[in-house]
Amino acid sequence: PADSAIDVGGVVVGWGLEPVVIAGPCAVESREQVLAAAQAVKAAGAAILRGGAFKPRTGPHAFQGLGYEGLEYLAEAGQAVGLPIVTEVMRIDQLEPVAAVADCLQIGARNMQNFDLLKEVGRVGKPVLLKRGISATLEEFLAAAEYVLLEGNDRVILCERGIRTFERALRNTLDLGVVPFLRQVTHLPVIVDPSHALGRRDLVTPMAKAAVVVGATGVMVAVPPDPARALCDGPPSLDPSRFTR
Amino acid sequence: PADSAIDVGGVVVGWGLEPVVIAGPCAVESREQVLAAAQAVKAAGAAILRGGAFKPRTGPHAFQGLGYEGLEYLAEAGQAVGLPIVTEVMRIDQLEPVAAVADCLQIGARNMQNFDLLKEVGRVGKPVLLKRGISATLEEFLAAAEYVLLEGNDRVILCERGIRTFERALRNTLDLGVVPFLRQVTHLPVIVDPSHALGRRDLVTPMAKAAVVVGATGVMVAVPPDPARALCDGPPSLDPSRFTR
Amino acid sequence: PADSAIDVGGVVVGWGLEPVVIAGPCAVESREQVLAAAQAVKAAGAAILRGGAFKPRTGPHAFQGLGYEGLEYLAEAGQAVGLPIVTEVMRIDQLEPVAAVADCLQIGARNMQNFDLLKEVGRVGKPVLLKRGISATLEEFLAAAEYVLLEGNDRVILCERGIRTFERALRNTLDLGVVPFLRQVTHLPVIVDPSHALGRRDLVTPMAKAAVVVGATGVMVAVPPDPARALCDGPPSLDPSRFTR
Amino acid sequence: PADSAIDVGGVVVGWGLEPVVIAGPCAVESREQVLAAAQAVKAAGAAILRGGAFKPRTGPHAFQGLGYEGLEYLAEAGQAVGLPIVTEVMRIDQLEPVAAVADCLQIGARNMQNFDLLKEVGRVGKPVLLKRGISATLEEFLAAAEYVLLEGNDRVILCERGIRTFERALRNTLDLGVVPFLRQVTHLPVIVDPSHALGRRDLVTPMAKAAVVVGATGVMVAVPPDPARALCDGPPSLDPSRFTR
Repeated sequence: PADSAIDVGGVVVGWGLEPVVIAGPCAVESREQVLAAAQAVKAAGAAILRGGAFKPRTGPHAFQGLGYEGLEYLAEAGQAVGLPIVTEVMRIDQLEPVAAVADCLQIGARNMQNFDLLKEVGRVGKPVLLKRGISATLEEFLAAAEYVLLEGNDRVILCERGIRTFERALRNTLDLGVVPFLRQVTHLPVIVDPSHALGRRDLVTPMAKAAVVVGATGVMVAVPPDPARALCDGPPSLDPSRFTR
Repeated sequence: PADSAIDVGGVVVGWGLEPVVIAGPCAVESREQVLAAAQAVKAAGAAILRGGAFKPRTGPHAFQGLGYEGLEYLAEAGQAVGLPIVTEVMRIDQLEPVAAVADCLQIGARNMQNFDLLKEVGRVGKPVLLKRGISATLEEFLAAAEYVLLEGNDRVILCERGIRTFERALRNTLDLGVVPFLRQVTHLPVIVDPSHALGRRDLVTPMAKAAVVVGATGVMVAVPPDPARALCDGPPSLDPSRFTR
Repeated sequence: PADSAIDVGGVVVGWGLEPVVIAGPCAVESREQVLAAAQAVKAAGAAILRGGAFKPRTGPHAFQGLGYEGLEYLAEAGQAVGLPIVTEVMRIDQLEPVAAVADCLQIGARNMQNFDLLKEVGRVGKPVLLKRGISATLEEFLAAAEYVLLEGNDRVILCERGIRTFERALRNTLDLGVVPFLRQVTHLPVIVDPSHALGRRDLVTPMAKAAVVVGATGVMVAVPPDPARALCDGPPSLDPSRFTR
Repeated sequence: PADSAIDVGGVVVGWGLEPVVIAGPCAVESREQVLAAAQAVKAAGAAILRGGAFKPRTGPHAFQGLGYEGLEYLAEAGQAVGLPIVTEVMRIDQLEPVAAVADCLQIGARNMQNFDLLKEVGRVGKPVLLKRGISATLEEFLAAAEYVLLEGNDRVILCERGIRTFERALRNTLDLGVVPFLRQVTHLPVIVDPSHALGRRDLVTPMAKAAVVVGATGVMVAVPPDPARALCDGPPSLDPSRFTR
């Protein structure tokens, strides 16, 4: 009955609390890149550092992430600037090593119904950031969270990241209406990731603000040191100075 | 090249101007009802009075509006409280009589590609409020506006009112991302109607605020005197006191 | 309770009857063009001639049809080859002149919820071919037909012509599953138009055959004399020899 | 350049070959149930036996399958009637034990973008039946198959099983147009599963026939011994006598 307040490495995410800003590069590309990003987002006031070591990509020929090497760089960067970190896990055997260094484990949109991964992440004693599948109904989204909760892990943060519709001008449709709706039906906090949905950096700032206005408990944005050279999701990424503003 | 600033009975709608609030009952149901609504929304600060005399309804057995009688009541109410009025037209032979009393002619979502109606409304010297079709791409939306513009009427206000997606928890998906996107590709102002999209009144206020945050030039909300007794769209309608807050 | 059997100029369309083939150019472009098409489709066994005089186009700069001149050419062609004709009406004042020469009045997908047009066509004593809106649920489709039926015209032929989905490889998604579904919930016959949905001529023939296999009471295909030079919908149009096969 | 002809335990699936019928219960529920189903579908002419041991379910409280026990029953049933078997794998550590007894490994729609599972299944020397994700574009579908192919396994059978659209009368929209489209862009065979998409058994037979008419290399249908008592997907399942007809 009470709202969840989820502690991510000392930062608490929950309905009614100060919205949390999670920022960092879409993908960890090098020790220098993630450290530079970490310093920039820390300076700008972000509370949690994000960065992908294992990257789910539509095709096998795209950059798949640095893997465990990237995880190490991310952990170093987080420690260097004093920010907790969140990073994606894609397979069960990554859970233990990632949980050893990360403060929050992310399940990506494509794995929202990878039920075995959900069960296993539910057995790990770490907060989980669960992204909504690109065409998942809210009923399915909450049912996916239930897989985690049922294993004894009630620290699940839900993340709206855009849904697939007929519209083709923008990459996806960011569905902000779900935030006040979920506020009423679940105790789990909801954050919003506008970067991937919109695919254009000029829309990220207004939509992130709107997410906060409709009550989101946090926003998650892609902030690499140099968006023009990012190997992954450069177009919707904010550079540090735009992010700071 | 310059943004349009559209004068609706003395109220100017345009990018960068103060956002305009359009409010009133979904459907005009009686002289008393629309007058009460007009007084309430005027008192709360609305700038334009809305109300439907001709109502497009999915099935023929639903209340179809009071027609010309409703138009007369709406016009009286607008004059009584000193607010300009906007109301929907559904067929070409309504254009002249409606334009005689209304300050702005609304083309509903279902008629967004009723091209003959668009052409004819383009020949009437009145502002047009063009609602986005429920599955219209932005390219189609702008092309529909072009039908009006090409006839010499450049006073078109675009209205995002929710799109149809797979999601079933809410009636439609309010697509706020189109507001900052359209800001960059058209000189026509964009307003947002959250009431019909969401289908629930508790989501209307946060989403209306978010619309303003993302830059909408106005919002349009359903405010009947007594939502519980409304013949049309009661569930997402705000009562006057909630609207005032 | 009994299935409708709808007589279109001597050709009867209904569940359980021989499927009817409706063919002809998407748009009437000249007297010669439509006559050539009529001769070709008649020779190949089509039962009804189609051709658009009034064309709903996404933008105002595209070819809008020849109008009444095109209607006259279509009527001449139908008489010359002895085929009944079906053609689209877009506005109420076209109903009377079109009904004077056409055997069946088509309401296009974009006008499926142009309720005033539906009501008025319901008062004309001619069969109506009602196309499903591009994102119309079956409930809305049947409710639209109800607008016609309620005015006393029970000769409505429903037409599935593809729906809008997320898929982008084909123009629309032809929803053949609705045919056996509608078979069970309505007495009105259902035909299928594969040309517009698929947008590619190589898919038209297999999907038209599939439509018949799932029980459609007819198919409607675009067959201009020379698809490469068609002003409208050339890519999915069949040339006469392919149509004959 | 040449079409793939994929040998599944002696049954060859490929473009231009005789369409293959894959049938059996949605879920293996007991030794008796799957054996009865196997005997029935064999008698009716099916070429491959299907049955789920590991079941991906929207919520954690639904029947999740019998697991390895179910796999054993399925293998016994296949041997008893002399049919090769196909069954779903959901996690990497299932690949080896399932491949030891199954002739074909199925990747479900929800795991179409579980890229690690795809990579690992690509390293197993068994044919793969890859289901299209519920909102996967064809480009994404083919890219998912590429993950398997790139690991050296070119025996991938694609399966259209319905997509998620706005339509609510049927469970999903079976997208038959993709069959002739994929025929032209890939050498991999395409089969169709109408059962899950339609959610109603009365539509399965016409749509399965239509799948063959548009060129599908096979169909896959749910045939438990007693649909009324099935723990999973009873409504769209055919009973053996309907399947035989």
